[in-house]
Amino acid sequence: MVWNTNLRWRLPVTCLLLQVAMVVLFGVFVRYEADADARWPTARQHNTSDLENEFYYRYPSFQDVHVMIFVGFGFLMTFLQRYGYSSVGFNFLLAAFGIQWALLMQGWFHSYHEGYIHVGVENLINADFCVGSVCVAFGAILGKVSPVQLLIMTLFQVTLFSVNEYILLSLLEVKDAGGSMTIHTFGAYFGLTVTWILYRPGLHQSKDRQKAVYHSDLFAMIGTLFLWMYWPSFNSAVSNHGDAQHRAAINTYCSLAACVLTSVALSSALHKKGKLDMVHIQNATLAGGVAVGTAAEMMLMPYGSLIVGFICGIVSTLGFVYLTPFLEARLRIQDTCGIHNLHGIPGIIGAIVGAVTASCATTDVYGINGLALAFGFDGFKTNWNASMQGKFQAAGLFVSLAMALVGGGIVGIILKLPVWGQPADENCFEDSVYWEMPEEPKSTVLHPEDSTLKPSEP
Amino acid sequence: MVWNTNLRWRLPVTCLLLQVAMVVLFGVFVRYEADADARWPTARQHNTSDLENEFYYRYPSFQDVHVMIFVGFGFLMTFLQRYGYSSVGFNFLLAAFGIQWALLMQGWFHSYHEGYIHVGVENLINADFCVGSVCVAFGAILGKVSPVQLLIMTLFQVTLFSVNEYILLSLLEVKDAGGSMTIHTFGAYFGLTVTWILYRPGLHQSKDRQKAVYHSDLFAMIGTLFLWMYWPSFNSAVSNHGDAQHRAAINTYCSLAACVLTSVALSSALHKKGKLDMVHIQNATLAGGVAVGTAAEMMLMPYGSLIVGFICGIVSTLGFVYLTPFLEARLRIQDTCGIHNLHGIPGIIGAIVGAVTASCATTDVYGINGLALAFGFDGFKTNWNASMQGKFQAAGLFVSLAMALVGGGIVGIILKLPVWGQPADENCFEDSVYWEMPEEPKSTVLHPEDSTLKPSEP
Amino acid sequence: MVWNTNLRWRLPVTCLLLQVAMVVLFGVFVRYEADADARWPTARQHNTSDLENEFYYRYPSFQDVHVMIFVGFGFLMTFLQRYGYSSVGFNFLLAAFGIQWALLMQGWFHSYHEGYIHVGVENLINADFCVGSVCVAFGAILGKVSPVQLLIMTLFQVTLFSVNEYILLSLLEVKDAGGSMTIHTFGAYFGLTVTWILYRPGLHQSKDRQKAVYHSDLFAMIGTLFLWMYWPSFNSAVSNHGDAQHRAAINTYCSLAACVLTSVALSSALHKKGKLDMVHIQNATLAGGVAVGTAAEMMLMPYGSLIVGFICGIVSTLGFVYLTPFLEARLRIQDTCGIHNLHGIPGIIGAIVGAVTASCATTDVYGINGLALAFGFDGFKTNWNASMQGKFQAAGLFVSLAMALVGGGIVGIILKLPVWGQPADENCFEDSVYWEMPEEPKSTVLHPEDSTLKPSEP
Repeated sequence: MVWNTNLRWRLPVTCLLLQVAMVVLFGVFVRYEADADARWPTARQHNTSDLENEFYYRYPSFQDVHVMIFVGFGFLMTFLQRYGYSSVGFNFLLAAFGIQWALLMQGWFHSYHEGYIHVGVENLINADFCVGSVCVAFGAILGKVSPVQLLIMTLFQVTLFSVNEYILLSLLEVKDAGGSMTIHTFGAYFGLTVTWILYRPGLHQSKDRQKAVYHSDLFAMIGTLFLWMYWPSFNSAVSNHGDAQHRAAINTYCSLAACVLTSVALSSALHKKGKLDMVHIQNATLAGGVAVGTAAEMMLMPYGSLIVGFICGIVSTLGFVYLTPFLEARLRIQDTCGIHNLHGIPGIIGAIVGAVTASCATTDVYGINGLALAFGFDGFKTNWNASMQGKFQAAGLFVSLAMALVGGGIVGIILKLPVWGQPADENCFEDSVYWEMPEEPKSTVLHPEDSTLKPSEP
Repeated sequence: MVWNTNLRWRLPVTCLLLQVAMVVLFGVFVRYEADADARWPTARQHNTSDLENEFYYRYPSFQDVHVMIFVGFGFLMTFLQRYGYSSVGFNFLLAAFGIQWALLMQGWFHSYHEGYIHVGVENLINADFCVGSVCVAFGAILGKVSPVQLLIMTLFQVTLFSVNEYILLSLLEVKDAGGSMTIHTFGAYFGLTVTWILYRPGLHQSKDRQKAVYHSDLFAMIGTLFLWMYWPSFNSAVSNHGDAQHRAAINTYCSLAACVLTSVALSSALHKKGKLDMVHIQNATLAGGVAVGTAAEMMLMPYGSLIVGFICGIVSTLGFVYLTPFLEARLRIQDTCGIHNLHGIPGIIGAIVGAVTASCATTDVYGINGLALAFGFDGFKTNWNASMQGKFQAAGLFVSLAMALVGGGIVGIILKLPVWGQPADENCFEDSVYWEMPEEPKSTVLHPEDSTLKPSEP
Repeated sequence: MVWNTNLRWRLPVTCLLLQVAMVVLFGVFVRYEADADARWPTARQHNTSDLENEFYYRYPSFQDVHVMIFVGFGFLMTFLQRYGYSSVGFNFLLAAFGIQWALLMQGWFHSYHEGYIHVGVENLINADFCVGSVCVAFGAILGKVSPVQLLIMTLFQVTLFSVNEYILLSLLEVKDAGGSMTIHTFGAYFGLTVTWILYRPGLHQSKDRQKAVYHSDLFAMIGTLFLWMYWPSFNSAVSNHGDAQHRAAINTYCSLAACVLTSVALSSALHKKGKLDMVHIQNATLAGGVAVGTAAEMMLMPYGSLIVGFICGIVSTLGFVYLTPFLEARLRIQDTCGIHNLHGIPGIIGAIVGAVTASCATTDVYGINGLALAFGFDGFKTNWNASMQGKFQAAGLFVSLAMALVGGGIVGIILKLPVWGQPADENCFEDSVYWEMPEEPKSTVLHPEDSTLKPSEP
């Protein structure tokens, strides 16, 4: 198929329309949360310190999450030899739009009071989280879609994410601080469904470009490392103040560390000469962070976290070696970044770990106050117990999967329309379709010493 | 013109003299602020927590700002194909000197008590801010000056920055937390004046190197993203504790997000095939952060921030496409990085937005305490009102512009002296003038698999 | 010598065995610290704020340190043209294992209560610190060892580090917040001893690859800058709350700034044409951070810090130019990254500065409470005075050196066994020994514009 990839009017019009809509909706609906409002010095109790402002509890974590979304996901996807501009640039574009739309969607569900959405630092974190799930889905279709398609997908996916999140967190009272279900499972299966519908039988014509070169792999490691390092902030960013944030960071740190060793072990064991594969190091090492997303703030214990990371490093690497080729060959699922191995399966594992950990919660381990606080066993949940919480956690997983498959199906069909400027099969994974490219220098790029320089005075 | 570019004695002597001067001046003048002094546990009130130390309010923001100055500005300028060492390295050098000199200059104006400058974390942030304005100016003359010239420019610009800042903040009582006026407007017009005076008619001989190559653009995106992500910290770092910091972060986040979409829209719309230009993505997307610098801590409202970002993405991209070539062709202003579009115009817009927002402040919106706190309407400013504040804000813009033009003129003339080791017109944008360059590998850099390796035992 | 470098079973078995051991030991020994335990809301005093949780004092610094270990050290070592995968990847592997083992070893010495190690955010920081010393040692043997050797070295070095740290901090009551002695001196001389024992007479066969290329130097600058920027967090991360953390950050900031100027000065002065050498900019500029490690939290004064940085920039650059070649030629010490200049000598200088600064401490400068707090002059140390503290500081240096030399010797001998899959002399500094490498594109990598793309509809 050959489509018109000249986006001269489609992309600007899409961007401007969306942005104008955002301005209008923000004007009508969005105001500052009390902690960010200039009336705060008057409104708060007099004996509290400035430090009690939510800002100081959450802002450092927010910035770490922000780096994960923009540099982490953006650079992780630069491993393709000719798609670095698009990986970083389109991720930048969709995330910048997504966070605005997420502030609105999540705001209507969770921060809507007296006609206004009240926005504070926690909303910023949640908006970044929501966009994280779009970045995950982007990984499946990377290289095969136009920026217009990405904006449309973001519009729908953020909407569905918010609905799903509302069902899980508010109706089912599920705990999912690090988003194993809401972000990773939902994002991965949404993206996989979209790429399944957008199946390109002629994609082999672009296979040469669907590989790394030496430097592109190093750029991708920047993404990997910032994701890996800041994941403890991701999983703890919206947990309860105090011990819950503290514990979530420790658990994530442990899980990720274990995951690196088993990823390396499997990567070497599965290569005929025992060599390591950068794809595994860039991706499977992160699966441990995904899989403790739900349970990180619970009393999973450090060894529990290590076990989760241990398993996920193995499962994820096996997935890259065996499952991804199988999915592509048999199920016609072309998963560019292997998100099924990094977010899909580990997300499901995380949901199960969360459900089991919640089921096992006792007042012995949590203390009476602690248990009520950790799971919100108060208000209308006073009759709940740990086992019920576990069942609702499990239900949350199935809801997320269902929403992802149905939503991804609908969005996939919309994106299949031949009007969005998508690239032809033989032009996938190629920046020059959408980007003005620099000319390569005619002669050698680098000349040692200054032999070619005009001589200067001694 | 051919100058002697061998810096063997000039650069070492300049560095050592400046550093010795810093040691002596620090020895005479600089001491710790009370919060950083070992007598703090004795001095503070007994019932306050350790957390009340200013360190915990400001340190995370400080580190984000620090990253912006050194990685953000440093890597943003690596887009040139043959000037990566100098972009990162000279930025590193001038900033390392500049922060020391700024601690002194700003200290004398703002933290001088009983014969000593008392330095704490807020001083570190302000020193980084001051250097930020030098980094901005560096962008205009990038590739055309020697490191000795940069150190001299830093010496003078930091001095003038501090005087200008003192006039604005202390005499005119202007609010400018994110530095739209003091940092961006001042820095940009200072740099533009310097490059105007250093005009090189023969610069076209180096035009081939004044472009990016594929990987250099990806390095530059590291700079762009760290600037973009941490800009909320930049604009909130020295705001009042509590709601003001909180609000400044939210406003900046919103403005920057909107700016990305309109930059992309314009970049595509202005290209004949609708393709995106990395120059716009790297630069215009940041204009929104510049333009909410003054108003970010005010009650600009989230939609107000979106509007500011919306406008700046458009104006900045238009500037890159139409204004920069015009300035170079007609006004002989050779602006390497297009700082006029990223810092100049958005800085002026930011000053105006700030003046208008301040003028509109009411006790309805801010609360009575809030208004007094936000604008310092107490002490000798008790008779002020919002409209007066707005007028003084506007005055601050003109003072900054005047200082930049006059100061830049004088410094430009000093830098024009043919003794600083500047490169010849045909050697601009070339690392090998000042750097020992690595030899390029003779054969292929990369050989697939280990075919060239000596065989190892099975 | 030709060894079998196929790690197909050795690397996976090593990783899995170590990780299983970690899981078991964590299961038996590791629990959450009170601040990270769900019983915290019950256990703490009722009138304290959530903010009193240790998490909020230390977490931002922890994340900065985390970045230094994984991105800082990882990318600093990517300067080699063909060893980027290994630099980043092996550093990732050894650090991920090392932090787990360090949590246990340091935990047994410092956080062991009632049969359990209680882990909180401070333990995470200390584990990162401990691994930092392994990263330092890695710099000496970079390119010449297999990942199996690195894991074994990490196992032993973390053990010895913890013993040494226990002797210094708990038995000798030495202060060493930034680890000039425990991390840098110990790590450097440990690594130098190992590389001395692993001396390779035929290494000249790989000399071509022991150099940078243009882009690898830029990747290395990412490492340099993140180390440089976050070093204030490193030196202040585990200091006492309040003024000590605050002061440590200020001192480190000052020292590092001064160090940049003298490094640049010497780099230029020592080159026959006055050109700068990236090796010095990447490394010597960091020596100031190493050398204020011990004294940063003391009342070193800002000018004291400048003097330390001033000296270290000079000494370190001189070391790269004169000492490293001498060590290699005469003492058969092949120090790939020049850690002797960046961590060895500056570490010793730091220990001396710390001892002198401690000796000079008076109640005039610290206040009575301050002095007791800063040096722990209470409990069984009530009879100590500053001069005694200084002597014990000096003793700490000698213990660290002795432990490093003896420990490094033993570990070196173990690593010399020809069974660990080390590369042959002619294959050193070469990723393809241990990594699956990407094929280079057959034709040009980059084609300007879309001339090679199939034409699309107009």
